[in-house]
Amino acid sequence: MFKTLNNDPNAMQKGRRTVFIVSDATAITADTLAHSVLTQFSEFEYDQHRLPFVDTEEKALAVANRINEVYEATGVRPIIFSTFINQEVDAIFTSECKAFRIDLFRSFIQELEQEIGLKSAHSMGRSHVIADQERYNRRIEAINYTLAHDDGQMNKGLNEADVILVGVSRSGKTPTSLYLAMQFGIKAANYPLIPEDFDRGELPEVLQTMRHKLFGLSIAPERLSQIRNERRPGSRYASITNCTQEIAAAENMMRREGIKWLSSTTRSIEEISATILAELKLNNAEMV
Amino acid sequence: MFKTLNNDPNAMQKGRRTVFIVSDATAITADTLAHSVLTQFSEFEYDQHRLPFVDTEEKALAVANRINEVYEATGVRPIIFSTFINQEVDAIFTSECKAFRIDLFRSFIQELEQEIGLKSAHSMGRSHVIADQERYNRRIEAINYTLAHDDGQMNKGLNEADVILVGVSRSGKTPTSLYLAMQFGIKAANYPLIPEDFDRGELPEVLQTMRHKLFGLSIAPERLSQIRNERRPGSRYASITNCTQEIAAAENMMRREGIKWLSSTTRSIEEISATILAELKLNNAEMV
Repeated sequence: MFKTLNNDPNAMQKGRRTVFIVSDATAITADTLAHSVLTQFSEFEYDQHRLPFVDTEEKALAVANRINEVYEATGVRPIIFSTFINQEVDAIFTSECKAFRIDLFRSFIQELEQEIGLKSAHSMGRSHVIADQERYNRRIEAINYTLAHDDGQMNKGLNEADVILVGVSRSGKTPTSLYLAMQFGIKAANYPLIPEDFDRGELPEVLQTMRHKLFGLSIAPERLSQIRNERRPGSRYASITNCTQEIAAAENMMRREGIKWLSSTTRSIEEISATILAELKLNNAEMV
Repeated sequence: MFKTLNNDPNAMQKGRRTVFIVSDATAITADTLAHSVLTQFSEFEYDQHRLPFVDTEEKALAVANRINEVYEATGVRPIIFSTFINQEVDAIFTSECKAFRIDLFRSFIQELEQEIGLKSAHSMGRSHVIADQERYNRRIEAINYTLAHDDGQMNKGLNEADVILVGVSRSGKTPTSLYLAMQFGIKAANYPLIPEDFDRGELPEVLQTMRHKLFGLSIAPERLSQIRNERRPGSRYASITNCTQEIAAAENMMRREGIKWLSSTTRSIEEISATILAELKLNNAEMV
């Protein structure tokens, strides 16, 4: 079960820890939290186990025992990142576990209860929060919308888009659109800018009345050439000359048309998406 | 700027608060955290503002002033969810802001520094953590893989999949595959089970050697019929009779072939994805 630890006799000496990400639901929030916190410690070495759906006292006791066994075997306290709604489960970890625990809900929810004078579902003993069904449906609808409006494949319904990403082929439009849909429920269409558009010197006609919701992605020619070469090695399409020309033409067009844009070269999808939301003031986001 | 507050004279009386989600990076972690915590308070009413990239002292002061203005206008402390790496920015919020602040990094990172005896990037005054480039590239590669292997469109490379979702058309395979790719860097292909497969009584040939990484999605016939009717209203494809037959045949096939499966009817994409990872022991996940 603890393969890495058992196989590595130096684990203890190096102070290598075992991290448990545990939740009575999906453990995705706890995982995000753990990742955000642990990336702050570049020298920290650890083995990680993710245990979702620990939602009964029986499962909680089994996990607590397992964690205690790690403590006994390694001599250092395991680290737990948890998000428990179920109070019985939470109590078992508090009383039974010889570990260092960071629980998102325990600390923040208690503080917030005091601040706003309301009881949380947690305090009321509700083990399942009623999901935010409307928000969820909006996300699913956005994903379907984005898939149907990827790469300019459907003009119908473009007027429903929250944002339409434009840019040359392989500039990062598709992953960004999907992230916007999935994470934020944003209907993100994307539309390629192609050599014919540059020759004509005009935006594709269907986009001309939608300038206010266009957002451009550009990319360094060298990086674009590299990406295109993976798909079509040695092609004119992938050549640095062609990529340089297309990028210059696309950036000119975006400047001329007053379209906000950024370069995706050194930015993550999360950074690009957060910037787009803030620039277009979507989902309560704003650029300061 | 505070449209809802200004337009709603009852805001104060109702104890309505203003929530600021602020970060010196994308604010996505802070947003996830805020959402997780706030959904625990079903009766809590608030207006929300998301302010990413507050990464200079100047911007921090501007935001702090704005937050203090909300306090003065409403008479109740705004609530801040923040994740600051930049110490100067953090210090400004601590000293200048009349608000109730929950900061993910301040509390947890300090506690963890003591526990593991290492300094965080935060403490070392590094304002940007070096991104986990390998993890990021893996996610992008997974998204591209998943898009190329959606709906059985490409058999080539199926052996590289971490998981292959199977199920009847519109059972939820595509959004789940994309979520697995985007959130976890999982190469998730998906393959439809169609009436021809049921007539033949066998899995599609290409899947027969890959049983160990198949995972099935089923769905209640009524729900399936509803979803299909949105796409092809009144069709035989969408009829409840046909949906009931396809679902029964698919579930029989999955049972017979020993494929783990679940019903997507009442589960969110996150729940389905977390279950798949734990059942197939992917990404350090395990089912307890």
